[in-house]
Amino acid sequence: MVTASAPGKVYLFGEHAVVYGEPAVPCAIGLRASVTAHEREGGLRIRADDLSLSGFTVEYDGDSNNRPDIDAPDSLVEAAMGYVDEAVAQVRDAADAPDAGFDITIESEIPLGAGLGSSAAVAAAAIEAGTRELGVELPSEEIAERAYQVENTVQNGQASRADTFCSTMGGAVRVEGEDCQPIDSPDLPFVIGYDGGAGDTGALVAGVRDLRDQYDFAADTVEAIGDVVRRGERALAAENVTEIGKLMDFNHGLLSALGVSSRTLDSMVWAARNADGLGAKLTGAGGGGCIVALDETPETLTALEYTPGCEEAFRAELDTDGVRVETE
Amino acid sequence: MVTASAPGKVYLFGEHAVVYGEPAVPCAIGLRASVTAHEREGGLRIRADDLSLSGFTVEYDGDSNNRPDIDAPDSLVEAAMGYVDEAVAQVRDAADAPDAGFDITIESEIPLGAGLGSSAAVAAAAIEAGTRELGVELPSEEIAERAYQVENTVQNGQASRADTFCSTMGGAVRVEGEDCQPIDSPDLPFVIGYDGGAGDTGALVAGVRDLRDQYDFAADTVEAIGDVVRRGERALAAENVTEIGKLMDFNHGLLSALGVSSRTLDSMVWAARNADGLGAKLTGAGGGGCIVALDETPETLTALEYTPGCEEAFRAELDTDGVRVETE
Repeated sequence: MVTASAPGKVYLFGEHAVVYGEPAVPCAIGLRASVTAHEREGGLRIRADDLSLSGFTVEYDGDSNNRPDIDAPDSLVEAAMGYVDEAVAQVRDAADAPDAGFDITIESEIPLGAGLGSSAAVAAAAIEAGTRELGVELPSEEIAERAYQVENTVQNGQASRADTFCSTMGGAVRVEGEDCQPIDSPDLPFVIGYDGGAGDTGALVAGVRDLRDQYDFAADTVEAIGDVVRRGERALAAENVTEIGKLMDFNHGLLSALGVSSRTLDSMVWAARNADGLGAKLTGAGGGGCIVALDETPETLTALEYTPGCEEAFRAELDTDGVRVETE
Repeated sequence: MVTASAPGKVYLFGEHAVVYGEPAVPCAIGLRASVTAHEREGGLRIRADDLSLSGFTVEYDGDSNNRPDIDAPDSLVEAAMGYVDEAVAQVRDAADAPDAGFDITIESEIPLGAGLGSSAAVAAAAIEAGTRELGVELPSEEIAERAYQVENTVQNGQASRADTFCSTMGGAVRVEGEDCQPIDSPDLPFVIGYDGGAGDTGALVAGVRDLRDQYDFAADTVEAIGDVVRRGERALAAENVTEIGKLMDFNHGLLSALGVSSRTLDSMVWAARNADGLGAKLTGAGGGGCIVALDETPETLTALEYTPGCEEAFRAELDTDGVRVETE
């Protein structure tokens, strides 16, 4: 029996623009998904206690028509099933063990569907746990690649490499098209606000595409985000946390112009700014979900806790550890 | 005795970027300042009942050291005194009547210091009323020029021609550098939300300048606002109110990126958007003050009335009349 874990992530800079070839910088955060894999005779049994799914245990034979009857939204259950199913397929392929069966237990500190990369973390941790359980040790690049394949299959070819690469490698990473590289970063005092919701990623991405197709100034705005990211990389290298915050603020404004913020996201961003946080922006697809702020003091966290529309606020540090074995 | 009035204004597009040579489009709104001028023997007596100054009547001899002792903030009293004083100087000059004295009465529907151009409207109306009282009829271009001189003197050479030109001419106008032109516009169903405050214009303009000096992407953002304005001119010419709203939304996002929005301005903008208004943005220097939204239905007005931080919400139509004589 092997337990592996992998971190969630926030986008420090560059979401949406990354779709058009601009660089982006996701950062792993100290909230983890853990997957325990225990080999068993054939088939797959999944147990998830802590996925905002009010806990479920399912006998699952890998046939998605046999969806278990549990009390949770279809979309989340199917998503969870899909990721684990595809991750186990990758484990069988990597270990050359097409018939391997598993008991899989998932626990996660990462709110599901909040744009914090919970699915990427589950995929990476499941691949690491499953292959180790079969006595195979994969290089991290291969875990990242296979976790990407998991997401890409479940997301019908629309996945970005950013989440899975970041979750596997840990720390700050730079993503530009197919190219993913770990980059240096100082400690970053992340504070995250979550409105309990989630935007419709597909619709948000399509909205940006429409604006960009229709208006040159929207294409320029996407490029300006790329320029913010490039400047942000220099600020990271220089460990200039004040400037990183300032660039996050600017990045948020450009995302707002592209129509992907929301009332509660803006409320949370202003709560952070007015609490003298160093900077704040939405993270991920937008339309709802999470903001990320930088603040070493307790002020931003307190301000978020009193912000209407903020369901949950918590602190998270940059996590330099990517996927790792916890126990075996 | 002559009473003249002139309208306030909102910026449909382009504030801040106009400082860097980009075009801007202010629009006159159906809220007016009225000035009544009555010739008298020497000196100047000013009466202002409705300027958020809780009403005052002052014998004023034009010497700013003799500031009257009334119950209102110094800055507002000095501003009101200064504008009327300079407007009367322009009247004396235009009518070649250096010793003309006046009783001046000011009434205004335009909230003072809210970024809706109350001072420009008072200046234009005072020049029109004063010169007519002396039997002189100035062409509107000259009223605009002299009202600009009033603002520029009071604002120590920092005034823009936009407010005074718009208030004098009425309707939508296009301002680019020194060049001001009336432009065609459809009826626009403005809804205005006012947070009761005002940003520090000097600090906000300086903040944009610093960002622009430091970062190429901020300079690009200023240019993108110019592109939004140029597109907005085409939408105005095409009477495409839906697109005008969409462009206002984009313009607001770019202003946010430049750091000139605020928590309450964003709250009001979101209230308008979530009420299915056609578009919404801050108007003027930002940091506080007013937002302008487009909505023919009552929804945005109602939403603003229930938005925390919105002190006052009202409807205003585009006013095609500029400065005009009301009674003589």
